[in-house]
Amino acid sequence: METIGTALTGPVLTRLPKGKDLVEALTEAAAAIKATKAQITVIGALERAKLGYYLQDERRYIDFALDEHVEILCGLGNISLKDGLPFVHLHLTLSRKDCSCLGGHAVAGNIIFAAEACITPVAGPALERGFDEPTGLYLWK
Amino acid sequence: METIGTALTGPVLTRLPKGKDLVEALTEAAAAIKATKAQITVIGALERAKLGYYLQDERRYIDFALDEHVEILCGLGNISLKDGLPFVHLHLTLSRKDCSCLGGHAVAGNIIFAAEACITPVAGPALERGFDEPTGLYLWK
Amino acid sequence: METIGTALTGPVLTRLPKGKDLVEALTEAAAAIKATKAQITVIGALERAKLGYYLQDERRYIDFALDEHVEILCGLGNISLKDGLPFVHLHLTLSRKDCSCLGGHAVAGNIIFAAEACITPVAGPALERGFDEPTGLYLWK
Repeated sequence: METIGTALTGPVLTRLPKGKDLVEALTEAAAAIKATKAQITVIGALERAKLGYYLQDERRYIDFALDEHVEILCGLGNISLKDGLPFVHLHLTLSRKDCSCLGGHAVAGNIIFAAEACITPVAGPALERGFDEPTGLYLWK
Repeated sequence: METIGTALTGPVLTRLPKGKDLVEALTEAAAAIKATKAQITVIGALERAKLGYYLQDERRYIDFALDEHVEILCGLGNISLKDGLPFVHLHLTLSRKDCSCLGGHAVAGNIIFAAEACITPVAGPALERGFDEPTGLYLWK
Repeated sequence: METIGTALTGPVLTRLPKGKDLVEALTEAAAAIKATKAQITVIGALERAKLGYYLQDERRYIDFALDEHVEILCGLGNISLKDGLPFVHLHLTLSRKDCSCLGGHAVAGNIIFAAEACITPVAGPALERGFDEPTGLYLWK
């Protein structure tokens, strides 16, 4: 039977520290509330950004560095377990000075200017990632 | 009086099947947890995409097919009832290999490469769509 | 000790009125359910848009007016207190007829064509904004 203790604590709003890597900061914010299974959203701004795109045919990510101040229009993702440890999977939609948009998978290198996150714990058994042969990705088993 | 039984079950994280239509997969995932009123978010990637844009003056959608591998930066929407059946309303923000973005209303034809959804049931009375004369859309009554 | 009374009411889905300013409508929708600390999401369409971008070095916003019908792909943000009053902080990702995207910080001047919001109350002590010297923004204390 599923425990629903986690879900009943409800979502948490938290400010993330300036100058820190976004994925790292989210990982720490989740750990602080003991969330190992959660939905994440975030808005704010970055001092610079680094985004990934998955080449579905070549089964590898390519990165795109953006040395520019950008707004975080939408950071959306989740936390689950990978190799037994909490793992943040986050996609980012960003905007530039002219309001044009850029986006991708958040890799290391997104440096926070200001960020407001909402972490919503999800109840039930642990959710674990494992290698998925058809895609080459680590997906939920 | 409102029942809050549904909301207390909390959000659910679920992986959607590769090769399936995104809106269809979300409709089935919601049915599996008996959610007929919910918020939906989704990240992942598509093998190809199909987006709609509503011509507010002409009161009709136009479609835009994208035969390209794209990241799902943000799928955001909801489930409510239309003609008595669960209906998914979803908007998509997508990114390409160069991190540029495209987006629109999700119609049939968004084929999943990998997708992770969060379905958050919402408590209270059923929410039903009906024709709205001022917009030409089916909105909540 | 934190009260969790608010969180247990769960998220609310609500339609926002046509012709109204989006941030104003969200502020009123939150007030109607007495939410002063919440996550907000919204999809829909705008009759016209107005977006901001924060110049991190100059410490001021510049605005970008878009006199065009656009889809709201993703409105994401939160409600907390500023000067003791509920304050909506919202970022918008929008799309045009050709599915290209624009986005930024939502300022006054986003006029609703149709909008469906989800307001998720967050439990616990009030969250207040105050001036933050390192960024020049009003962030959570």
